[in-house]
Amino acid sequence: MNYAKESLRLHGEWKGKIEVKATVPAETETDLALAYTPGVAQPCLEIQKDVIKSYELTRRWNMAAVITDGTAVLGLGDIGPEAGMPVMEGKCVLFKAFGDVDAFPICIKSKDVEEIVNTIHLISGGFGGINLEDIAAPRCFEIEKRLKEKCDIPIFHDDQHGTAIITLAGLINALKIVGKEKENVRIVVNGAGAAGISITTLLLTYGFKDIVICDKSGAIFKGRENDMDPIKSKIAEVTNLSKREGVLADMLVGADVFIGVSAPNTVTTDMVRQMAKDSILFACANPTPEIFPKEAKLGGAKVIATGRSDFPNQINNVLAFPGIFRGAFDVRASDINDEMKLAAAYALASLVSGDELSPEYIIPRAFDRRVGKAVAAAVSKAARDSGVARI
Amino acid sequence: MNYAKESLRLHGEWKGKIEVKATVPAETETDLALAYTPGVAQPCLEIQKDVIKSYELTRRWNMAAVITDGTAVLGLGDIGPEAGMPVMEGKCVLFKAFGDVDAFPICIKSKDVEEIVNTIHLISGGFGGINLEDIAAPRCFEIEKRLKEKCDIPIFHDDQHGTAIITLAGLINALKIVGKEKENVRIVVNGAGAAGISITTLLLTYGFKDIVICDKSGAIFKGRENDMDPIKSKIAEVTNLSKREGVLADMLVGADVFIGVSAPNTVTTDMVRQMAKDSILFACANPTPEIFPKEAKLGGAKVIATGRSDFPNQINNVLAFPGIFRGAFDVRASDINDEMKLAAAYALASLVSGDELSPEYIIPRAFDRRVGKAVAAAVSKAARDSGVARI
Repeated sequence: MNYAKESLRLHGEWKGKIEVKATVPAETETDLALAYTPGVAQPCLEIQKDVIKSYELTRRWNMAAVITDGTAVLGLGDIGPEAGMPVMEGKCVLFKAFGDVDAFPICIKSKDVEEIVNTIHLISGGFGGINLEDIAAPRCFEIEKRLKEKCDIPIFHDDQHGTAIITLAGLINALKIVGKEKENVRIVVNGAGAAGISITTLLLTYGFKDIVICDKSGAIFKGRENDMDPIKSKIAEVTNLSKREGVLADMLVGADVFIGVSAPNTVTTDMVRQMAKDSILFACANPTPEIFPKEAKLGGAKVIATGRSDFPNQINNVLAFPGIFRGAFDVRASDINDEMKLAAAYALASLVSGDELSPEYIIPRAFDRRVGKAVAAAVSKAARDSGVARI
Repeated sequence: MNYAKESLRLHGEWKGKIEVKATVPAETETDLALAYTPGVAQPCLEIQKDVIKSYELTRRWNMAAVITDGTAVLGLGDIGPEAGMPVMEGKCVLFKAFGDVDAFPICIKSKDVEEIVNTIHLISGGFGGINLEDIAAPRCFEIEKRLKEKCDIPIFHDDQHGTAIITLAGLINALKIVGKEKENVRIVVNGAGAAGISITTLLLTYGFKDIVICDKSGAIFKGRENDMDPIKSKIAEVTNLSKREGVLADMLVGADVFIGVSAPNTVTTDMVRQMAKDSILFACANPTPEIFPKEAKLGGAKVIATGRSDFPNQINNVLAFPGIFRGAFDVRASDINDEMKLAAAYALASLVSGDELSPEYIIPRAFDRRVGKAVAAAVSKAARDSGVARI
């Protein structure tokens, strides 16, 4: 099927992928008097007295905002807020289908960090959580950080953390297959955008010790002079501690794990041959990966994951964000913190175990119906254990 | 029924009155490939090329935002954005039930005109229109004016224009009953807030000549020195041209029409007695009107309307806003202009005609199923005729 053509045709037919439905009757004068004036004054007054009641008397308990500025939509780059809307609506469809979360798409017509943060903060009182989406790096880091400081609801940039959580889950299982320990493996992450930085951060939090990040200028190290920014400088403090220099191919020599969140065809079979025995490759560039599974195998790779549904081991964000918000919402969490992200990764990894676990099956499939519930339960528990649950 | 108590109980049971529903399937990998990646890139690119395609490929064509700052919620005053949410959700329920419009509630945590305007403008790209709600005067006037300049979608402050349209509709029919002409009647409007100013403006646009607005300091006239603001000064340019001075009771002497959007029990039977023969009173303070119908009749009033459903002739905004947005959306209007507002009023008035028309029945009832369609058709036509329709 030509997905582009068929999708365009369907979008023209659908004319939108979400609707706002009333869940209460409006058939009689009594209905109106209870759902609207004069009766509605009473729930308003209750919330005025205690704003946390907004979680009990309105839809806030289950309502996420899916917010973009349209600057990093899919691989399309900066296409503007209106053009980002089909993706945002699609994300809302997935939130509902996989997490039973109400999600509403909001596209912000600004590229100014201050303005974006302010806008989101000002409308946050109507939502139980904010899912940031397709906002370009490095702006996305600052926006998320500032919002986490200003808001008392979960702020979650899915392009960063969703990808990181699923990558970690896959890696936990891949290491079991090759019999290596997190303390000893060498990891190379290619791509220093939102996903690359966030994956690296979560892997370090989990306990990996030796990670080198590469960008277009090669390995990032503390003190590198060209092509740096505050985010890269910060991550250089905790990665590549032996200050290796060189291009991606140099870094891959002897490495155990390659994680690509970069560009098509950046890794060759020859480069894989230079990696350590039983190498693990997550080639997540989409739709064309950094290296196709067949070629990676030729180079000796043991476990390969991609972003595609037509190969084994798909790194698909739908495995994480619906369950994470479901879990956060179920306990009215004030944050989605590292403990909750790690718990989500453990939960995902543990769904594939024992005899099932194989090089072709390290992470659950997108339509595995156990996923949403398992992730939600783990995230709720981690929220409670880490003190951010409010019920 | 104790509406307050029962409404609070129901709100606790409902836990919100709206939900966001997916309208497309997400059951298979193909579903996801078409509604989300990779297929969704194509509709995104189409919108990037031509932003008006956002009306064809997303829900924008039918999506209204119901936006408040929580400063003038019902008669409760400034209760804050979160506490305004039950009303906003209720409004969204009415939008769907009476106009088949998707409406989503947004509560803005700011009282600064600049900030509110900016926030709404920045998120407007996802909506087909903006319904402003329960924003205090005089801020509401400035916010609406500025947004109309900045945005190319309809901006409609319902507390102003909805009330004005229905009042005009009722007045057109009331005049038929008493056999008076718009050119000759004397009108007194009590209340110089959002509704009072907007009613006066629309009545002048329609062709009434002699209107006096009263506030707590009495009749407003050009050059009055106490208790004025820019809005009152502006309306004083076109009302009370003979510069009558005095309190409400003075103004009512000899007046043909009283329109109250003010406070309970501000008019007495004696005051009605001083009005012209066959007086018309719209006593819209809610739930306790400026004067109860029975007492107005004792004073000689011929036609009486209130904001209540338990008396004849209810001035209920649900008669206007759903059909107005439906009509605007159906032709992708860039504005809701005076022509469209007048058309809505004519359409409402014309639904009650001939033998049906009586002092007890001058405007359609809230649940008259003809209303939404009639208003929408008239508004669409007026949008076309006035050049703001885009399809």
